Amino acid sequence: MVWGIENSRELYGLKGVLNNQLFDINEKGELVVKIKGKALSIAELLKKYGLPGANIRILPWIGEMIDYIAGLFLKSIKEKNYRGSFRPVYPLKVNHHELVLKSIKKYGEKYSWGWEAGTLPELYKALSIKTDGLLVVDGVKDARGLKRIAENKEAYGEAIIDIESIREARLLEEIRKHIGDKIWIGFRIRPMFRGESIWSSSSGLSSKFGLPLSSIYKIIEKQPWIKNKVIMLHFHYGSQIVARDALKKMFTEMINTYTVLKEKYLPNLRYIDTGGGLAFDYESTLSGSLYSPDYTFREYVETMLKIFKEHIEEHGILPPDIVFESGRAIVAPHRISVAKVIDIRPYISESRTEIELVEKIHSSKTIKELSEIARESENIINRLLSFTENIDMKRRELLEGMIEAIYEEIPKKAKEIYMMDRNNALKELAENTRTGRPLYRYLTSPSRRYVLSFSLFNILPDNVILNQYFQVIPCSMLDRRPDVLATISDITCDSMGEVSEFISKLPEGFDDIFTEEDNRLLGIPGKRVILRGIPLHLPRENEEYYVAFLHTGAYQDPLAMGHNMLEGYPEIIIDENSDNELIIRYDDNAKDHYPQ
Amino acid sequence: MVWGIENSRELYGLKGVLNNQLFDINEKGELVVKIKGKALSIAELLKKYGLPGANIRILPWIGEMIDYIAGLFLKSIKEKNYRGSFRPVYPLKVNHHELVLKSIKKYGEKYSWGWEAGTLPELYKALSIKTDGLLVVDGVKDARGLKRIAENKEAYGEAIIDIESIREARLLEEIRKHIGDKIWIGFRIRPMFRGESIWSSSSGLSSKFGLPLSSIYKIIEKQPWIKNKVIMLHFHYGSQIVARDALKKMFTEMINTYTVLKEKYLPNLRYIDTGGGLAFDYESTLSGSLYSPDYTFREYVETMLKIFKEHIEEHGILPPDIVFESGRAIVAPHRISVAKVIDIRPYISESRTEIELVEKIHSSKTIKELSEIARESENIINRLLSFTENIDMKRRELLEGMIEAIYEEIPKKAKEIYMMDRNNALKELAENTRTGRPLYRYLTSPSRRYVLSFSLFNILPDNVILNQYFQVIPCSMLDRRPDVLATISDITCDSMGEVSEFISKLPEGFDDIFTEEDNRLLGIPGKRVILRGIPLHLPRENEEYYVAFLHTGAYQDPLAMGHNMLEGYPEIIIDENSDNELIIRYDDNAKDHYPQ
Repeated sequence: MVWGIENSRELYGLKGVLNNQLFDINEKGELVVKIKGKALSIAELLKKYGLPGANIRILPWIGEMIDYIAGLFLKSIKEKNYRGSFRPVYPLKVNHHELVLKSIKKYGEKYSWGWEAGTLPELYKALSIKTDGLLVVDGVKDARGLKRIAENKEAYGEAIIDIESIREARLLEEIRKHIGDKIWIGFRIRPMFRGESIWSSSSGLSSKFGLPLSSIYKIIEKQPWIKNKVIMLHFHYGSQIVARDALKKMFTEMINTYTVLKEKYLPNLRYIDTGGGLAFDYESTLSGSLYSPDYTFREYVETMLKIFKEHIEEHGILPPDIVFESGRAIVAPHRISVAKVIDIRPYISESRTEIELVEKIHSSKTIKELSEIARESENIINRLLSFTENIDMKRRELLEGMIEAIYEEIPKKAKEIYMMDRNNALKELAENTRTGRPLYRYLTSPSRRYVLSFSLFNILPDNVILNQYFQVIPCSMLDRRPDVLATISDITCDSMGEVSEFISKLPEGFDDIFTEEDNRLLGIPGKRVILRGIPLHLPRENEEYYVAFLHTGAYQDPLAMGHNMLEGYPEIIIDENSDNELIIRYDDNAKDHYPQ
Repeated sequence: MVWGIENSRELYGLKGVLNNQLFDINEKGELVVKIKGKALSIAELLKKYGLPGANIRILPWIGEMIDYIAGLFLKSIKEKNYRGSFRPVYPLKVNHHELVLKSIKKYGEKYSWGWEAGTLPELYKALSIKTDGLLVVDGVKDARGLKRIAENKEAYGEAIIDIESIREARLLEEIRKHIGDKIWIGFRIRPMFRGESIWSSSSGLSSKFGLPLSSIYKIIEKQPWIKNKVIMLHFHYGSQIVARDALKKMFTEMINTYTVLKEKYLPNLRYIDTGGGLAFDYESTLSGSLYSPDYTFREYVETMLKIFKEHIEEHGILPPDIVFESGRAIVAPHRISVAKVIDIRPYISESRTEIELVEKIHSSKTIKELSEIARESENIINRLLSFTENIDMKRRELLEGMIEAIYEEIPKKAKEIYMMDRNNALKELAENTRTGRPLYRYLTSPSRRYVLSFSLFNILPDNVILNQYFQVIPCSMLDRRPDVLATISDITCDSMGEVSEFISKLPEGFDDIFTEEDNRLLGIPGKRVILRGIPLHLPRENEEYYVAFLHTGAYQDPLAMGHNMLEGYPEIIIDENSDNELIIRYDDNAKDHYPQ
């Protein structure tokens, strides 16, 4: 078997629609980013600037994502002859980095991209950037904030102030005379439907956000003037709704609610803010798992328009304009976080103890037999580990070495069996992938710990907070079979500063399924499996080996934590000038805080 | 029943040894902090400066904690005639806020308090502050860092460089000629024993940190000169080891390993760094739960010394000096985070639908009967909620109101039954506390959502990351029975920005166990129970009502996240001058970002 670049594309998930458009591997086996017809090697960039790691920002990609999302809506609106319009806003919470906001302004202008501000500082920022589109103001407000909106009417096309409680409705009295003149009211509705997602507690009858029906009635009753000034209903079912089924229910509830409230109470309704929810495929597998939707962006848009249109035609009302809060989809890809490997440590031990069990492992002929031995070994190890109280050094040494030997020999034998009879072995291996099967655990466990010069808390806070998955890929040696499965450790003092999960979805027929050196599994062709280590190469002597985390451009900037005083990270910024030429600059921001 | 201040002390957990020393309630029912014989009302401070909230820093408390911890060690060392010494170091990772570091320097100087630095910026910072005690350098190093240590010998009494891999041992060659002259080597050992704690993955044979035995042997073999320069073994079993049993196993493993390695390989060993692990009682219940140890600080110290001493006497070796990494215990209390209530919203609905079930609730005579009805109600609600697809507004309105009615009536009836026959009712209520019992869920559920002017991501990041528990207590009205159980919402756009858990451990005989207004349970006397809402008061019209989170001084500063651009929070700093007079100053840092 000869490993080729195409194998790496498949293993590291570069074949999905989006990744295929953004990334590739060059003939030297290096990961490249595709920008404006050029292909830049990430490893080369890092080496050129002598950096221990960096966040690479590719600003033109923000433009590409804006065009892509807007294009989907505009095309679908036209095809379906939907008579409402597309009114995008960017929620500042997703990433308020100066360069991100500038890029959205620049690339979004032609679509009148607006802003969504959920706090006072976001509101002040949005007012300072200006838009001829919408300014949606939600979150908890106060009188000062409302006055600032009234005083800055030149900063937006229309401002819509979301109301979420009786107190907030009362606050409106402070600027009542301005309402109706570029400033309008939105009601944020507490959604009934509650899907399955990480942030699903954003919806449901007791959710943090939105008005229950009873509060709407009370507001209208106490402040009847409000009725005619409400032009928008705002829904938010939580970030990353991954199931197509949930989308249908959401959109149905939205348009139902809109229709009833418009007919009975709020005659001037004309916008639905569909909120966040469009899931970004962090796995690039379209698998319907927590970080990967089972639908495409296109399907999201088409499902929305179809449901809205059918409902409207049935009820004979005008179609609402769609206020679309596009955050993740637009900014997630623009940042790639890269870190250098500075130490490689054994996962368990650097030496092994020879034991009888190894003979037994060697004698097994099938995966099935090996699977039995794996179970037996695990029992032995667990028994030994349970007697660790008052352990003496001699026994500890033996134990470390014994575990190491077992973790080396079982995978080695599995690979051997596979090489002899692939079809049968594969079938038996596939049966082993159920969690809890000891053989599968041995085959997918890391044998090394790679220390990378970065802080997980600073670069991928959502991995720490939510165990959010980000695709990982080496920046070089991609023309070679990975040598090992490894845990990635950061340089913080915190045991949470590690990443070990790797989602593998090899295509049918991919037969090069073992690592070179530690004989671990790279996946099971045709299945989505989770490995407990990341496929990486053993760098050659004096070779600088970098590892990239993809799609880190949404939320990871604002949530960055300064654990262990590791604040900031070098930046490489890729931009374009007015002649469409690429400009690359870098900022060695905090570079000295990271070991080389 | 008349509610008194003493009831509030018990409900809000101010009676524990530490809290009793730091906090009290004054005759106006306000929470006060006790500093140098003075009692300051927190609510008054906040009102005086007109703040929406603040982190209050009480720097003299850092001094008190330092004296307390050092006192425990010094006293116990003397009593036990332990012949090793106490060598404290402060780990910068816990909180590197300037004022915190200054205070540790000031109050720790008389104990030669040293520093522990785990990253390059921490190392540079520690070198700039100086100590005549120890400087322990662990974490991932590079040549530059080691050179800085060698170039700044005036900055510490002794520096000990922890080695964690073969690469790091090799790095030592760069400064080899300095080693032995104020600079020494430590080996960080990968502990075998793995306890049950949140950070327990810091230990065990495959943990992120420390050398396996095999690596130690390899290092000594390849670089034999190192043997004589290793003076310290460093252990870290993870933060917050809450079980007394685990302590014993930890200390036993430490001293076993020390003895063997000293006798066979490392003759100059003289320090054991016992690492972090001393658990801080965030609940103030000494309950052995995740955030509350089942031992006191004193027991920790005495257990350590006892085990070390016995072992040493058995083996006839000199007792190791104890390098103690005291972080949380010293700085956790110094910061109190306070936020103002700016909105109170219904948890479910503002109105109710009258239904037959209410009659049935009214007719029940015992908690047992009510418990059956609660189960029935829950089934009904769940059935109704499962039909929410295509729900029309009329049905939604009925449903909201019906749920509201049930959530109002069941607790009301429970209180009524309790008032009639306390003993029987209490017994039956206690039986209901098992999770999954519907009645208990109704009785401990919130009826309100209090919006506080703060960001949980900024103020209590560990609550977001780990669901870490922090004690919550209102700053006023503590002479009155709490009115409701409430969820506390922050002002971020994130559904994770809520706190609802309240741990109640009422003493036997506490009989005022229901809230005033929504008739929820405040606890079960003699039991530790978890409520799903926080006992709070309905503020009087125009009253400013503040809520405090206690013990937020460890880790919450460095982990603060800037979600929704909510970075920074006002600060009130309480310090003392050289005449032991209190000085209070404030910084309205980002005040305008928080709604008033």
